[in-house]
Amino acid sequence: MKACVIHAPHDLRIEEAEVPPLGAHSVKLRIGAGGICGSDLHYFQHGGFGTVRIKQPMILGHEVAGTVIEIGGAVTAVKPGDRAAINPNQPCGACAQCLAGRANLCLDVRFYGSAMRFPHVQGAFREILVAEERQIFTIPDHVSLGQAAFAEPLAVCLHAVTRASSVAGKRVLVTGVGPIGALTILAARCFGAREIVATDVAALPLKTAKAVGADRVIDVATDTLADYAANKGTFDVLFECSGNARALAAGLDAVRPGGTVVQLGLGGEMGLAINTIVTKELELRGSFRFHEEFGWAVDYISRGLIDVTPLLTETIPLAEAQRAFELAGDRAQAMKVQLSF
Amino acid sequence: MKACVIHAPHDLRIEEAEVPPLGAHSVKLRIGAGGICGSDLHYFQHGGFGTVRIKQPMILGHEVAGTVIEIGGAVTAVKPGDRAAINPNQPCGACAQCLAGRANLCLDVRFYGSAMRFPHVQGAFREILVAEERQIFTIPDHVSLGQAAFAEPLAVCLHAVTRASSVAGKRVLVTGVGPIGALTILAARCFGAREIVATDVAALPLKTAKAVGADRVIDVATDTLADYAANKGTFDVLFECSGNARALAAGLDAVRPGGTVVQLGLGGEMGLAINTIVTKELELRGSFRFHEEFGWAVDYISRGLIDVTPLLTETIPLAEAQRAFELAGDRAQAMKVQLSF
Amino acid sequence: MKACVIHAPHDLRIEEAEVPPLGAHSVKLRIGAGGICGSDLHYFQHGGFGTVRIKQPMILGHEVAGTVIEIGGAVTAVKPGDRAAINPNQPCGACAQCLAGRANLCLDVRFYGSAMRFPHVQGAFREILVAEERQIFTIPDHVSLGQAAFAEPLAVCLHAVTRASSVAGKRVLVTGVGPIGALTILAARCFGAREIVATDVAALPLKTAKAVGADRVIDVATDTLADYAANKGTFDVLFECSGNARALAAGLDAVRPGGTVVQLGLGGEMGLAINTIVTKELELRGSFRFHEEFGWAVDYISRGLIDVTPLLTETIPLAEAQRAFELAGDRAQAMKVQLSF
Amino acid sequence: MKACVIHAPHDLRIEEAEVPPLGAHSVKLRIGAGGICGSDLHYFQHGGFGTVRIKQPMILGHEVAGTVIEIGGAVTAVKPGDRAAINPNQPCGACAQCLAGRANLCLDVRFYGSAMRFPHVQGAFREILVAEERQIFTIPDHVSLGQAAFAEPLAVCLHAVTRASSVAGKRVLVTGVGPIGALTILAARCFGAREIVATDVAALPLKTAKAVGADRVIDVATDTLADYAANKGTFDVLFECSGNARALAAGLDAVRPGGTVVQLGLGGEMGLAINTIVTKELELRGSFRFHEEFGWAVDYISRGLIDVTPLLTETIPLAEAQRAFELAGDRAQAMKVQLSF
Repeated sequence: MKACVIHAPHDLRIEEAEVPPLGAHSVKLRIGAGGICGSDLHYFQHGGFGTVRIKQPMILGHEVAGTVIEIGGAVTAVKPGDRAAINPNQPCGACAQCLAGRANLCLDVRFYGSAMRFPHVQGAFREILVAEERQIFTIPDHVSLGQAAFAEPLAVCLHAVTRASSVAGKRVLVTGVGPIGALTILAARCFGAREIVATDVAALPLKTAKAVGADRVIDVATDTLADYAANKGTFDVLFECSGNARALAAGLDAVRPGGTVVQLGLGGEMGLAINTIVTKELELRGSFRFHEEFGWAVDYISRGLIDVTPLLTETIPLAEAQRAFELAGDRAQAMKVQLSF
Repeated sequence: MKACVIHAPHDLRIEEAEVPPLGAHSVKLRIGAGGICGSDLHYFQHGGFGTVRIKQPMILGHEVAGTVIEIGGAVTAVKPGDRAAINPNQPCGACAQCLAGRANLCLDVRFYGSAMRFPHVQGAFREILVAEERQIFTIPDHVSLGQAAFAEPLAVCLHAVTRASSVAGKRVLVTGVGPIGALTILAARCFGAREIVATDVAALPLKTAKAVGADRVIDVATDTLADYAANKGTFDVLFECSGNARALAAGLDAVRPGGTVVQLGLGGEMGLAINTIVTKELELRGSFRFHEEFGWAVDYISRGLIDVTPLLTETIPLAEAQRAFELAGDRAQAMKVQLSF
Repeated sequence: MKACVIHAPHDLRIEEAEVPPLGAHSVKLRIGAGGICGSDLHYFQHGGFGTVRIKQPMILGHEVAGTVIEIGGAVTAVKPGDRAAINPNQPCGACAQCLAGRANLCLDVRFYGSAMRFPHVQGAFREILVAEERQIFTIPDHVSLGQAAFAEPLAVCLHAVTRASSVAGKRVLVTGVGPIGALTILAARCFGAREIVATDVAALPLKTAKAVGADRVIDVATDTLADYAANKGTFDVLFECSGNARALAAGLDAVRPGGTVVQLGLGGEMGLAINTIVTKELELRGSFRFHEEFGWAVDYISRGLIDVTPLLTETIPLAEAQRAFELAGDRAQAMKVQLSF
Repeated sequence: MKACVIHAPHDLRIEEAEVPPLGAHSVKLRIGAGGICGSDLHYFQHGGFGTVRIKQPMILGHEVAGTVIEIGGAVTAVKPGDRAAINPNQPCGACAQCLAGRANLCLDVRFYGSAMRFPHVQGAFREILVAEERQIFTIPDHVSLGQAAFAEPLAVCLHAVTRASSVAGKRVLVTGVGPIGALTILAARCFGAREIVATDVAALPLKTAKAVGADRVIDVATDTLADYAANKGTFDVLFECSGNARALAAGLDAVRPGGTVVQLGLGGEMGLAINTIVTKELELRGSFRFHEEFGWAVDYISRGLIDVTPLLTETIPLAEAQRAFELAGDRAQAMKVQLSF
């Protein structure tokens, strides 16, 4: 079995790996599609992010879908031949966060292709994957493995939208429309946003934002949100997906008094106009990963209620992973790039 | 009638002022006590704060209580001789915020002793005040005018605690225990906080925090919150009352995943560890002024459910206002200083 | 000008009425379409409902849309020729409920075609209507007046769905799919419901439920919800639109522990299994009318995000109002019946 | 070891029972005090309630406190000699409800002295109890075992108050002030209720309600809540503790539009004015048992923030259990009756 292994920044290798044994509750799949995520890119470009660094070779990838080829003796919910999205997120189910219903904040989580723990949790960009039965979410025939591989990033965005309490009837601003921003637009529309405005500084993201349903897109390299900042602000909810301090600052001005800001973008220390937060009584809420929203994502894609296909830029064979990662890292050329196996 | 008028930084004068006419729905009171607030101090020390600057002489003061001496023809709820706290906050009742139930964020508010509007709204540090009937909240005989003059800052803190959704059963951290921090401790205890820890860098605030019910006080000039930051944090709710970026930073680390931060302290641009907000899914909520909580404050003081007396450092006659403002500005010597009239 | 006036049960007359004068802030419209609502039917069939009774002749109707023909001198937002839905709900804007942001519960509301007040508030089934500027919500060319006349009942249902906090990602049951139930299905889907099951005892409502997006419909005259009641229940949210005690009882069993029941259907005293409410910690929430959701309804219809057309059974000229009311009252034959003027 | 065993209605026996073995994670205690609860009384008087019936002899009791006499090898948090309240509620920690943070609704719970499961879960009215370490909540020296034995019913009431979202600043009505009603008054006051009115039809409960802090008590055998029903109602929150349909009906009228009703009292099928729920948009929420609130209860009692002692009518030795149960069942004579061991 071949896998896509990161050894050091820009040192990405296609290597042989062993297929793990199949336990009673586990499922063996042949992976069909795998999307390259921002964190994969950070490992590829910089060897990590913040204090998280690669300390040993690690298989990348956590946005994957495949076909079941074998099942453990105790498995009942899936069978060979089933096609499925695979949830890369495995909360412990026993810590205080899990038992409080906040499994996405699990204190002892295992997440595919993450160097947060040591030894690292190996990822899913590999030909054969063995996963637990509860990680497997089957899809109907009319959904492709490429579409199913969007379940993970879509789950991130569905979760982010639930963090806003509700967007039903709301006017929504999305700042930064890379793949996460674009999926947030889809999620916000699916959950009832009345008006969606999106900002970015690049042409392809803005064009994609429009394609997935933004009512208006604004290129903040040349234009501003100033009109929306009149009378102390317009938007009920801001989804800040860029991790850029200027985007957050402009967004805070455009949100109405009593409005909500959901921060998805990571970005280190950011200067914040605390007096705006105080005097407009804004709520700034972090949003991190997902839990039950993975199943939702599979469901909304399967029922045709969310169409992720406008986001897919190109599907590239595993053998050309280097090119795939380079393309995925170029915002002028790519939204989502997937590997095929 | 004499009033306490600010002309420029450190130029505070006791001057004659005219008593305004009494309308049908208004009430004339002889002011008995007036607390000096942080914003009064900003006008005194710096001529304002942020973009808000004194542009004409302005009577200071908005934490006042007095005795009714005359009522307008249409007034029914109060009568001469009644003693009362006076609500300095007059939302318009007609803007979008007022009609959405967020009168504390009124877009056209009038607030005593504030230079936000021009002409400025004159304040209440004066011997005779004419106010609207709906601003008058009577107190029983056993409550002093000095206690009643705490209703306004207490209302700020009661509102802040409601901004945390609920503190019932919660572990609470209060950073910065000047008058607002100390009243927040009282408010949080009254609303059911299970454990309250308070931090400051000065002895008098820490001693007062203990006196008003903090379970533990920590001098962060010499000690840290590090123990509480273990396992991703301890506190359910942080009330940040200092407006100090380091206090907020240390507080964010001490709050548990999924916890809430209520920001009361103003402080200009503050660097914020946005990744902590995101990965712990914290909620940072501004808290600004109050609305119905003014009546609550009078009620809790009157029923003996909140005792504000440990906060009163000294009561100083109007004639010595200069000394009163200087004392109020010295954190080593004073918590709340009140003027008598 | 002709109007549709109820004098007594089954005594419906088309009569001449005077056109009211046009004030500075008011707008004169030629009504184009008017939907017959359940309360119109109650006046027609029984002369009222509960303690509300017709005590003087009253023009019926509150689901209307028309074309502006004249505007008052101070009107700026609309002009002659504009086509619009007309909000029949006029909260006072000054009572405690209005100022708390709950204008739908206004203590002094005026609502078209309602006998709750005396003199009654005359309704909008008339050729010419004079309304306040703020009641007028214009529609684009591609929306018909018939579609626009659905804004009012849709607003009722959008409001009901917001009463569930959020249906995003949720499994939803709708019991009773007359026009309100069917519009609730549309509203719930628009606001992100993941799965929608609907029940009724008649063929046309069930067929319509399917047409507007229910994933499954169940005829509870011949089938049951028993499967969904296993393991203490399945649905996250129940919208009870029938006002039928058995529907509520079966629904309570089918809702999961911790789930929410939104009651829209009116129905007098209903026996309730209070122990089910307690031991499953259900939340039963009333939902009444709407406020800002009227504008939302116009918006969702105009943007094509909600399609109400499957609900329209027939449009009947005013002159045949008697036939229209009889048809509207026959669940086997009609969902929504509209008058044309 | 002696235990208090119910065999059939009114057939209560003090019998010898075996001491269970001590596991590695378990703790052996000598029970000191045990409060008789309403469900104990139902088993004693009627052999059960609803469909729950005694099918084999069962030790009663779940409100107990005792002294640790031996610990298992893996126990670290308690030691012999510690005095503690014992949590009788053991959720499974693995079902959907537990993992959603609703352990009080656990689908596979074990609860002391309950005939819901078969074989029944034996109770804690026994001289020696072996419990799991996590059930043990130690108390300081100044708290008596009798006070500690109130932790369980107090936890029920603390949970009920959290079900109201927040009572901070609220006007609260409590209908029915047996032990649960009286503890609800204490809990509501501790969590910030501004005004508390209590109703009952018996003198002792009303007197106790006053003693634990109700601002006003009303004997609804001779007086009514009519004044509070004016203008569509007064109270923000109703805690219905009687399970009596008339109490709920009167309470619904006295709650303001948009208010909340928390139902604690069990009572079979109750007629409900559904139109009041709908047109006032009330929220009726069930409240069942507790989870983390057990630890809170121990904490509030230990810190002196809640004083349960006014509720204790009499402490009676185990040998006289029959008399204790008869007294506990007499509302004219008893609030809480405890057994001593």
